[in-house]
Amino acid sequence: MQRVLSGMQPSGRLHLGNYLGALTNWKALQDDHECFFFVADWHALSTNYEDTSRMTTYVRELLIDWLAVGIDPERSTVFIQSHVPAHAVLHLLLSMITPIPWLERNPSYKEKQEHVEGRDLSTHGFLGYPVLQAADILLYKADAVPVGHDQLPHLELTRELARRFNSLYTPVLVEPTALLTDFPKVVGTDGRKMSKSYGNTIHLSDPEPVVRQKMKTMVTDPARVRRNDPGNPEVCPVFALHKTYSDSTVIDRINHECRTAAVGCIDCKQFLANRIVEQLSPIWEARRTFEANPARVDEVVQSGRASASKTAAHTLAEVKEAMKI
Amino acid sequence: MQRVLSGMQPSGRLHLGNYLGALTNWKALQDDHECFFFVADWHALSTNYEDTSRMTTYVRELLIDWLAVGIDPERSTVFIQSHVPAHAVLHLLLSMITPIPWLERNPSYKEKQEHVEGRDLSTHGFLGYPVLQAADILLYKADAVPVGHDQLPHLELTRELARRFNSLYTPVLVEPTALLTDFPKVVGTDGRKMSKSYGNTIHLSDPEPVVRQKMKTMVTDPARVRRNDPGNPEVCPVFALHKTYSDSTVIDRINHECRTAAVGCIDCKQFLANRIVEQLSPIWEARRTFEANPARVDEVVQSGRASASKTAAHTLAEVKEAMKI
Repeated sequence: MQRVLSGMQPSGRLHLGNYLGALTNWKALQDDHECFFFVADWHALSTNYEDTSRMTTYVRELLIDWLAVGIDPERSTVFIQSHVPAHAVLHLLLSMITPIPWLERNPSYKEKQEHVEGRDLSTHGFLGYPVLQAADILLYKADAVPVGHDQLPHLELTRELARRFNSLYTPVLVEPTALLTDFPKVVGTDGRKMSKSYGNTIHLSDPEPVVRQKMKTMVTDPARVRRNDPGNPEVCPVFALHKTYSDSTVIDRINHECRTAAVGCIDCKQFLANRIVEQLSPIWEARRTFEANPARVDEVVQSGRASASKTAAHTLAEVKEAMKI
Repeated sequence: MQRVLSGMQPSGRLHLGNYLGALTNWKALQDDHECFFFVADWHALSTNYEDTSRMTTYVRELLIDWLAVGIDPERSTVFIQSHVPAHAVLHLLLSMITPIPWLERNPSYKEKQEHVEGRDLSTHGFLGYPVLQAADILLYKADAVPVGHDQLPHLELTRELARRFNSLYTPVLVEPTALLTDFPKVVGTDGRKMSKSYGNTIHLSDPEPVVRQKMKTMVTDPARVRRNDPGNPEVCPVFALHKTYSDSTVIDRINHECRTAAVGCIDCKQFLANRIVEQLSPIWEARRTFEANPARVDEVVQSGRASASKTAAHTLAEVKEAMKI
């Protein structure tokens, strides 16, 4: 069985975009892979070192979101990065063999530095982000890593570091392959891509009234001002979200009735809200179970720590022997 | 009692220069300080990652040298850096708050890069050398660190990082002060400063015949070709070493008798060799004891690991709490 590793930064509650993107993929991977899923709290520091006041809350929220959507700790190892110091040790050891130009040419390095305003990202830690990522992956000898196209350069660096290590010392590290995943684009309530930084998200943890309220205020075709105006579904964000959530019969009907003003935006949004609520209901129920039983979440974290530490310690011992440290 | 921390890279057997420089100072510090002395094996990787084949031997040799000269594990904590993963964790955490310009302006960064030939030092690990050094020091809340003038910029970076951490989060880190040490310049057998890279060293572990042979071939005043030529002690490396090893009566006599050709170079060197052998004899004896009892050395290392880990874990817990990780 192939081993897969993936992580997420604890940077707030998850939204529908995260769910339909990464999480449904993770859930499916559990069926035929040995999975390691980790909360990348050290990574979160590389861009958010200045204000860590909500870190503990974010880590907890993330874990509950995962468990609620069906990440199953009986089948997968769920753990917190900072619980396994071996990540920091392998990061340090790999940093010794990582040429700085490999890091500087990383496309997301300069891009993020330019796009994130008000924070100084010229830190040694931020530059070394892909080295820590390589350590995360190589420590578990993951055969494959689920990535989107934009993350391919990161994975390539991990593969290069594994090759460099194996050729300098002894071949003990596994070059992971990319499990290329096409993440659907989920539209946010303002019509742009759903994203925390746009404030246009619907969270997995939003209660039903909040979800319905957010849907009510979702933008539509701006040219359809009155109920009787015909609309253009091609430019309507609500219709885009229907394509994600509704079945083809509903989509076809809306497509037709919007153009002929047979359906109004309020009703159209309500059909969609119903579908979203339907999908979120079991997640809300699962969330309530875990929120009511914090000891169960602690147990997951502790058992994940033990299991991850064991695998990590094994690889680290091989790494140290190879390096004669 | 003030706490002091210092380390040495395992890069080969120690010589008289190391002994009269750092080690006699360490020995003396033990009398009135709580001392932590560590083998900086991770640091050694930052400049020597390509060939680590002798690392284990070097670490062992270094420990035996230390114990033989009188570093006393009953009074000081003697440990190996890589035995305490907390160094790597604090290095990672500090790297997140270390601006790259702080590292690039470090005078020894560019200098070493230019002077070390045949090795690529543009690595993430080499750039982060001073961050690891800061982690080493701050992890033990050292009040003071023995440094030469050339290392002051490194210590300043440690102090800056402690201040930055304390102001971003909670003040838990201690700003160490410099214990400025004037290291005597010890002349090597070729007349240049005694240094491993010049191949002009007398090792603490050289057997007596080797020491005497090295002394015999030591360079002298090049103008004094024949026994009856008068010499000039000012330009004679052997005389320079007399100043380190002999008492003032002998120095005055040699100074006079060299200029008048009353003493020959062979005799002059022999007086010096006798003094060096005299100083090294108890060290040789102690070395033999430790070499014959490897279990004792293991015991020192294990007990050092336990003691260092305890202190380090305590600081790391405070650091993590301050950062809310």
